Amino acid sequence: MHAQGLAVGDCAEFSKTITETDLVLFAGLTGDFNPCHMDEVQASAGRFGGRIVHGMLTSSLICTLLGMRIPGPGTLHLRQQLEFLGPVRPGDTVTARVEVLELMPRGRVRLRTCCRIQDGTLVVDGEALVVAPRRDA
Amino acid sequence: MHAQGLAVGDCAEFSKTITETDLVLFAGLTGDFNPCHMDEVQASAGRFGGRIVHGMLTSSLICTLLGMRIPGPGTLHLRQQLEFLGPVRPGDTVTARVEVLELMPRGRVRLRTCCRIQDGTLVVDGEALVVAPRRDA
Repeated sequence: MHAQGLAVGDCAEFSKTITETDLVLFAGLTGDFNPCHMDEVQASAGRFGGRIVHGMLTSSLICTLLGMRIPGPGTLHLRQQLEFLGPVRPGDTVTARVEVLELMPRGRVRLRTCCRIQDGTLVVDGEALVVAPRRDA
Repeated sequence: MHAQGLAVGDCAEFSKTITETDLVLFAGLTGDFNPCHMDEVQASAGRFGGRIVHGMLTSSLICTLLGMRIPGPGTLHLRQQLEFLGPVRPGDTVTARVEVLELMPRGRVRLRTCCRIQDGTLVVDGEALVVAPRRDA
């Protein structure tokens, strides 16, 4: 039995519309004023035809799930792998999803972690390795 | 010759104090209200003896460097690997650093990406894979 009460296949999702305001605040927090996020004129002429959301903002929704749902509060996040597969634009609604892939010794848990936008397009994929909190109850 | 004008060993750094305000705004942007970030009473009784900064906020400084310095604007971020090695507390000053490890075919660049706090402790380590923008000049 695994102390953390988790099973392979357990999953959770969290959705959020990433607004213009989110993008601007995130730029202020991180100092990332890359024109692809901040300059509509330059970004319109570029690869994605307009400004895109910071990939780390989108990906952060994964950690919201790890820390609040599965495994939840008390989780220690050891490792995160992220693959950025496509653009998220201001106004897109992102659904992050975590799914338990493997229960390992000493409370370690490997999870698939991904984000999709409203049309189902996978925009971030990857894996997390965490230590789940002990559930002594 | 590599189109992007980069050489192995090229590096850049960016430092920022991560304040209480940054932490609270980031929680609002991501919905991550894990008590280890938000509840001083619970966090004081926990593993780190107080609230800690969201690991993805710290790690985001890496992307600031990738998108604004090395390789810089126009960079396409393909993959990011993160290892969370220690806590960052509100008020800590984080220095992110990126260093070119390998120049690969088709403009791909592999970089070491890490963050340290003011006493030199490594708090995030990992690697990025990006496509550098073409420098046609």
